[in-house]
Amino acid sequence: MHLGWLIFYLASVGSASAAGNCSYKALLEHLGLGNDDIQMTSLRPVFKWKTPTFLFLDLFVTSITEVNEKAQSLSTQVTILLGWVNEYTVWNPDDFCGITLCSVKKDMVWTPDISITESIKTEFATMENQYVQLQNQGAVVTSNTFAVTTACKMNLHQFPFDVQSCTFTFQSPIHSSKELVISPFSDASFLTLSSKKAFQTQGEWELLSINTSKANVTTLGETQDQLIYKITVKRRPLLYVINFLMPVFYFLILDLASFFIDSAGGEKLGFKVTLLLSISVLLLLLQDMLPSTASDIPLIGESFSALNIILLTDAVKDTKSPPDSETDRHEERLYALDLLKQILVELQAAAAHQNQQERKCLSWTRVATIVDVIFNFLYVTTVIVFLIMLFKAWFP
Amino acid sequence: MHLGWLIFYLASVGSASAAGNCSYKALLEHLGLGNDDIQMTSLRPVFKWKTPTFLFLDLFVTSITEVNEKAQSLSTQVTILLGWVNEYTVWNPDDFCGITLCSVKKDMVWTPDISITESIKTEFATMENQYVQLQNQGAVVTSNTFAVTTACKMNLHQFPFDVQSCTFTFQSPIHSSKELVISPFSDASFLTLSSKKAFQTQGEWELLSINTSKANVTTLGETQDQLIYKITVKRRPLLYVINFLMPVFYFLILDLASFFIDSAGGEKLGFKVTLLLSISVLLLLLQDMLPSTASDIPLIGESFSALNIILLTDAVKDTKSPPDSETDRHEERLYALDLLKQILVELQAAAAHQNQQERKCLSWTRVATIVDVIFNFLYVTTVIVFLIMLFKAWFP
Amino acid sequence: MHLGWLIFYLASVGSASAAGNCSYKALLEHLGLGNDDIQMTSLRPVFKWKTPTFLFLDLFVTSITEVNEKAQSLSTQVTILLGWVNEYTVWNPDDFCGITLCSVKKDMVWTPDISITESIKTEFATMENQYVQLQNQGAVVTSNTFAVTTACKMNLHQFPFDVQSCTFTFQSPIHSSKELVISPFSDASFLTLSSKKAFQTQGEWELLSINTSKANVTTLGETQDQLIYKITVKRRPLLYVINFLMPVFYFLILDLASFFIDSAGGEKLGFKVTLLLSISVLLLLLQDMLPSTASDIPLIGESFSALNIILLTDAVKDTKSPPDSETDRHEERLYALDLLKQILVELQAAAAHQNQQERKCLSWTRVATIVDVIFNFLYVTTVIVFLIMLFKAWFP
Amino acid sequence: MHLGWLIFYLASVGSASAAGNCSYKALLEHLGLGNDDIQMTSLRPVFKWKTPTFLFLDLFVTSITEVNEKAQSLSTQVTILLGWVNEYTVWNPDDFCGITLCSVKKDMVWTPDISITESIKTEFATMENQYVQLQNQGAVVTSNTFAVTTACKMNLHQFPFDVQSCTFTFQSPIHSSKELVISPFSDASFLTLSSKKAFQTQGEWELLSINTSKANVTTLGETQDQLIYKITVKRRPLLYVINFLMPVFYFLILDLASFFIDSAGGEKLGFKVTLLLSISVLLLLLQDMLPSTASDIPLIGESFSALNIILLTDAVKDTKSPPDSETDRHEERLYALDLLKQILVELQAAAAHQNQQERKCLSWTRVATIVDVIFNFLYVTTVIVFLIMLFKAWFP
Amino acid sequence: MHLGWLIFYLASVGSASAAGNCSYKALLEHLGLGNDDIQMTSLRPVFKWKTPTFLFLDLFVTSITEVNEKAQSLSTQVTILLGWVNEYTVWNPDDFCGITLCSVKKDMVWTPDISITESIKTEFATMENQYVQLQNQGAVVTSNTFAVTTACKMNLHQFPFDVQSCTFTFQSPIHSSKELVISPFSDASFLTLSSKKAFQTQGEWELLSINTSKANVTTLGETQDQLIYKITVKRRPLLYVINFLMPVFYFLILDLASFFIDSAGGEKLGFKVTLLLSISVLLLLLQDMLPSTASDIPLIGESFSALNIILLTDAVKDTKSPPDSETDRHEERLYALDLLKQILVELQAAAAHQNQQERKCLSWTRVATIVDVIFNFLYVTTVIVFLIMLFKAWFP
Repeated sequence: MHLGWLIFYLASVGSASAAGNCSYKALLEHLGLGNDDIQMTSLRPVFKWKTPTFLFLDLFVTSITEVNEKAQSLSTQVTILLGWVNEYTVWNPDDFCGITLCSVKKDMVWTPDISITESIKTEFATMENQYVQLQNQGAVVTSNTFAVTTACKMNLHQFPFDVQSCTFTFQSPIHSSKELVISPFSDASFLTLSSKKAFQTQGEWELLSINTSKANVTTLGETQDQLIYKITVKRRPLLYVINFLMPVFYFLILDLASFFIDSAGGEKLGFKVTLLLSISVLLLLLQDMLPSTASDIPLIGESFSALNIILLTDAVKDTKSPPDSETDRHEERLYALDLLKQILVELQAAAAHQNQQERKCLSWTRVATIVDVIFNFLYVTTVIVFLIMLFKAWFP
Repeated sequence: MHLGWLIFYLASVGSASAAGNCSYKALLEHLGLGNDDIQMTSLRPVFKWKTPTFLFLDLFVTSITEVNEKAQSLSTQVTILLGWVNEYTVWNPDDFCGITLCSVKKDMVWTPDISITESIKTEFATMENQYVQLQNQGAVVTSNTFAVTTACKMNLHQFPFDVQSCTFTFQSPIHSSKELVISPFSDASFLTLSSKKAFQTQGEWELLSINTSKANVTTLGETQDQLIYKITVKRRPLLYVINFLMPVFYFLILDLASFFIDSAGGEKLGFKVTLLLSISVLLLLLQDMLPSTASDIPLIGESFSALNIILLTDAVKDTKSPPDSETDRHEERLYALDLLKQILVELQAAAAHQNQQERKCLSWTRVATIVDVIFNFLYVTTVIVFLIMLFKAWFP
Repeated sequence: MHLGWLIFYLASVGSASAAGNCSYKALLEHLGLGNDDIQMTSLRPVFKWKTPTFLFLDLFVTSITEVNEKAQSLSTQVTILLGWVNEYTVWNPDDFCGITLCSVKKDMVWTPDISITESIKTEFATMENQYVQLQNQGAVVTSNTFAVTTACKMNLHQFPFDVQSCTFTFQSPIHSSKELVISPFSDASFLTLSSKKAFQTQGEWELLSINTSKANVTTLGETQDQLIYKITVKRRPLLYVINFLMPVFYFLILDLASFFIDSAGGEKLGFKVTLLLSISVLLLLLQDMLPSTASDIPLIGESFSALNIILLTDAVKDTKSPPDSETDRHEERLYALDLLKQILVELQAAAAHQNQQERKCLSWTRVATIVDVIFNFLYVTTVIVFLIMLFKAWFP
Repeated sequence: MHLGWLIFYLASVGSASAAGNCSYKALLEHLGLGNDDIQMTSLRPVFKWKTPTFLFLDLFVTSITEVNEKAQSLSTQVTILLGWVNEYTVWNPDDFCGITLCSVKKDMVWTPDISITESIKTEFATMENQYVQLQNQGAVVTSNTFAVTTACKMNLHQFPFDVQSCTFTFQSPIHSSKELVISPFSDASFLTLSSKKAFQTQGEWELLSINTSKANVTTLGETQDQLIYKITVKRRPLLYVINFLMPVFYFLILDLASFFIDSAGGEKLGFKVTLLLSISVLLLLLQDMLPSTASDIPLIGESFSALNIILLTDAVKDTKSPPDSETDRHEERLYALDLLKQILVELQAAAAHQNQQERKCLSWTRVATIVDVIFNFLYVTTVIVFLIMLFKAWFP
Repeated sequence: MHLGWLIFYLASVGSASAAGNCSYKALLEHLGLGNDDIQMTSLRPVFKWKTPTFLFLDLFVTSITEVNEKAQSLSTQVTILLGWVNEYTVWNPDDFCGITLCSVKKDMVWTPDISITESIKTEFATMENQYVQLQNQGAVVTSNTFAVTTACKMNLHQFPFDVQSCTFTFQSPIHSSKELVISPFSDASFLTLSSKKAFQTQGEWELLSINTSKANVTTLGETQDQLIYKITVKRRPLLYVINFLMPVFYFLILDLASFFIDSAGGEKLGFKVTLLLSISVLLLLLQDMLPSTASDIPLIGESFSALNIILLTDAVKDTKSPPDSETDRHEERLYALDLLKQILVELQAAAAHQNQQERKCLSWTRVATIVDVIFNFLYVTTVIVFLIMLFKAWFP
């Protein structure tokens, strides 16, 4: 700790000398900055009013902190680099010992008004940058990092295999395109590359690309420049596959398999009710995540609902099986009783009507079995068709 | 990246010359703005105090970020465009090389105080606009985008087929209508159209219309102008239909169908308990969403409660069935025993009281069956009447 | 849109003339406001320091946005109207063309410091009002709307039939009662009426009344004035009745009814376990809402806990029943076996000990039945007494 | 409403006269305040730089709004009273008509920099106090109410019978103890008393005491004064006792009681599974509340885990019982068959091996019963020892 | 309370005398601070523009308030100590009665612009420090405490035995490394030691170390200095072990143990379904915590999913067992019937086909038993291999 302080002290002493035109102070006095001149801070810095001010802008997306499908909003950490021409702050570096750059407080010069049309909340992500950099040929550059939440129209049809595109529209709230011309500073591929390199989170979303385009909008009869950034992000579906799709498909396969199990109805029904409950829980979890929209309801939601109803119907059908198995046991008992009855067959004819009832039962059992087989065949077909359609929709 | 910078540089060099009366600076000096004049910034900009200031206002609703039924609040992203007459900032464009518009920092001129009466929270949605635009004929225009949360009386009687109307009342907290006259700038249909075009979310709510009206309110003996915007939004019910109504009606149909199933009581009861639990879970989810109000309890909530009680009663009734089915099996066994008894009929009369008990059981079974049929008939009737009433209430 | 602008333009042109003493500017110069005079903005506006400043205050409660029972806090939207005497800003309207009112920026005059003692969070609910209104006889009036969260001691003993009273204590943090005298502006009935009229939400809570009272507090040896508003709100219990009380009482009645059902133990137990689970879930939901306090635990919580334990005990008792019903079936079988045994009665005496066992079973069954009847009687009595006490506590 | 205004007017007129040295203005001019003097506002107000500034501080805790065990943070509403010596603002009251107190805007004088070391978030709880009070002998006093969230090391070993102590360490970020001496203003017992009197919530936590102590810390080679307040709060355990402990102990007693119930295995197992599920749900609810720490895991958590495992083991053991009861019924049937076999005993010896199997079953049943009794004894002993230890730890 | 005030008064009176060059005022006048000099506040404080400004920085991490695995963010309370060289504020202490330190308002001198690249939100944790300390040899020192939320790439592969490393990159948004040289003030071991000592929470995370390193980044063709702090934190896994791992391993052991239990199929299946549900609930709780990432899915998640599927398969297999046990009972009955049949064996041959069916059943049972044994062996092997791999991955 002492060492650092020593270096510090020596450096301080070493540089404490000389001045003249080699100081920032001389430059500021030359430029006329800093005496609270309204012209410098409040008016667009052009000599002739018809000259537009050129504004260059770069947007780096350095983190995706939240994607809220329900509220249809995207929360990001972005760095915005702004550069513009200030005709008043031009100087010859030779007159000032070669000074080409000078940082001054941002309220000493005019700064452009720029807003993000889609923004619901814009806050400084870190300590606010109080300075702008003046460059000798008249450019002023500043950079700030924001935590921005923007509204974003999301299409969740292919969830969880979806790719979302959200726009950031930069526009002046007041200046027309005759006053302020907004252009991208770097090209889109550089922004994408830099953003990916600086990306600080490894969460659910992957940044695919950043695209830029220019547009115009007419407000109060004046045309305004717009610079539109389109951020394309891709969901990493692994967890959803493991936690939603795998269990459901596994349940489905088990359910199909259960046709070939010739078990007692009670356990089979219990097993299907368990499947139903599991899928219902998954469905409720999904609903918590996804919004209610008119046209593009997520396929996965529809599928789960469909599956739920299919399984429920299947399970209800099985509640009809127990009487069959009851009947089976009934039949077994009847066989046993037959033997007894044979002993007494000539003694009484009282058991006659019973015999009839039994036969009805048997024929009813046969009909039920046929209906069951047809139902099962239709069920398996439905499920297969349904799965084929789902996969086609997900991976076109 | 280099290219952009080059254009920038050339533009900067090209325009660095000439001035005179063609600059904003000359205009500002003419108007007397910017020398911290209290008259300019703090006083209503009229020559004669009896002249009211005319304020024109436009409200664009560009996103609905949240509708909280429980807290009865609406969160929106809105753009507010304000224009008013400033008698001090009138100039002849011919005197200033044709300047008709000039943007200055907003703290250089007087700005009207305007508040939204229903607002619980008003924040800038994006970077605050620091500038106002002066127009040569004396108009001052500014525009800002806010994230606003407003209190809104919601009627949830027809949920999820409901349409909500929320108001935004613009009013000055201090100025009377003799001082500040508030009027809409554009007409309502233009606002609705523009808002729908700019709408950035595709969530649960659809913007139907924006209406404007004027009103007066008396505070401390002075009349104040109010400008009221009525925002009408419609819920997209699809997800609720799929997730709440479809399962419930499906359950209901299954329950009705179960009357015609002649299954053993145990499984039927288990199945009904499952139905009950499912509806209870749905009911609890609904309660989480909807508030407790005195008069207008949502129909859907009432219906679910009613259904729950109906099904519970039905299920309880079925707990009485098992003895019947027990009795059935009992009867079967008795038939079997009868055969045996016939062998010994002359040997003992000991089984006589047993016979009586059996007959009571049989008659009890018959009564139970009749009660059951009547109950089922009433139940089905109740459910049908109830469904008819529900649909009438939802889609009048 | 054009029309509005035209009216605007004409109005602007029409009024652009004349001035003299008829402008606000002349008035301000007369009053000496606006030249950054420390006396005007920082010192209590009295000529003689012994004169106290009279502060009048009105509180309108225009929305209740949240009542948090657990955190014991109340979130409201309130409008606070402040008026006070400024001896420096008195003028004769006749000298200024009849100006009686003038709005100036609030940092141009002294404003009283006022705080809400119970407040945990106070934020502007809408855009901050930057102006105060000067009246010619020396009064200064301002009004602002706040979103306030206040701590509030809640008594939840009668939940959900409770009425809560929360206080807003207005007090100066620094000025003693010799310096600042705080009084209500309007009377309480007017505030209640106005607040009810302006009420913008139709949620769980209904505003009953606003009462005012004055008090004193001694800080650092000086007496300070306090103005206390007591806001009384009443819960609308309907949803809680439908969702908590109705199901519980329904469960209770079903449970009582189940005594008269002579069903097999298994289903009865299963039914009671379902009741238990349902009440437990409701109890957990209640706990989520209500806080842990020493003395005044909500009656409803106690009742649910008591019910839970009663039902659990009842259900446990029923786990003892199955052996009885087993025994019943056993008995039936024994009757059947008896018949067979009669055939062989002279052949062997081996079955003798079996007979004894059976008799023990029978007597045990009788004892169990008696215990059961006594238990049931006590149980029904307990429940009835308990219900009577509960209703007495709720509706005294 | 009119009446109030009238009093107001009369008071205003009555006092509008006279001045001279009896005004605050004269005092301010004497003191030299208000002409933007850097010396007054930015420099420590001492004539000789070696004189330290004495700062007196009082902390009143007026609400506990949240205790977050998981994040280990405490949210409180506190009032901080600050007083310090300003050598420049001393005057003789006799020279100014007896003025002893004067309130001025706080940016007109130097204010000490003070921070709370443990604070994670400090916000004004109500409207910020803009004034400080000057006292004629040189003291400056100010007071503000904050909503503070502080980090607090919590020991949850005895939850829910725990007492937590959180500290508020007041320290200057920059000034050394040679420059700023921090002392408590009032004594601890007065603070405790006042805080308890002003306490506005009646929630889960009870304020026990506020203690003060002084400490030193060395930063960058300079010693700094610290004033440490220790806030001791006690949890009101009633709700936790009713909702967590009572059910668990009740379950435990029921479980122990179930040993003496000679019921069929199926229901007993079902009952135990219900107990298990209930305790598991309670355990999950607890985990939601309590944090994962290395050394001091809450006793209640450990206990629940232990209970869960004990009960699970007990329940698993019971899954072995059903075969026994199956065997019992088997035996009954065998007795019945024996009778039949006796008829045919001389006819065939085919049933011989069956007899052997039966005997094995019987002996296996006896062994199982002995194991069962031993297990139950150990189980009861474990539970009792465990309960004794738990109560000793909670109430030492 | 009186005592404190008395000391206060005496101290105040005692020091009210003398001045001259021994005051801070004289020093400020010498340095030329405080007359709103733009040079002092807005320009980098060097005489020759080529001299870089040396900035020294220390980061103390005093609390970890939240680690959000899902959002991949870290919330901490940090104290940042900044020191830099100001060539203008150098003085000889001998000229000023030995003054070596002087605290002034921070807006009176130039302050460096510094930002944390990873920050999503930076707020003052306590009252903002308004002062900086000037040291006579030209150093300026300031310190502030922030609540910072930073984005942090987390690797959750070894959860809950994971160690996370998050970086804080300090960088100037505007100044190049020719203008601003950023260095650590203290060495890393001192920072780690101090941070650990000041650590105010005892939660889930333990601070392991703070490391510093320097780096460069090129923006707009200029090199910028970066100072990177790497914070390494270790999770305290105890609660996760108790609540997630212990139950799961316990369930696993029970499941393995259940192979050796020769119980009736029904209870065994019920028990396994309970296990399944428990593990599913734990899995859902885990998913709530952990994010969906492409490559590094947590081992624990994979394991739970695998276990779930293994157990489900195992349970499904058991649904096939009941028919076996049914068959067993069937066989028993057949034995009984055999005896009866022997009586009638010469009377009828009707029972012949029945005998065949029984033999098929018996052989099918044998095959099922063999399949079962093989399955169980594979299952146990899988589980053991799986556990070995898991432990290797967790504790390499």
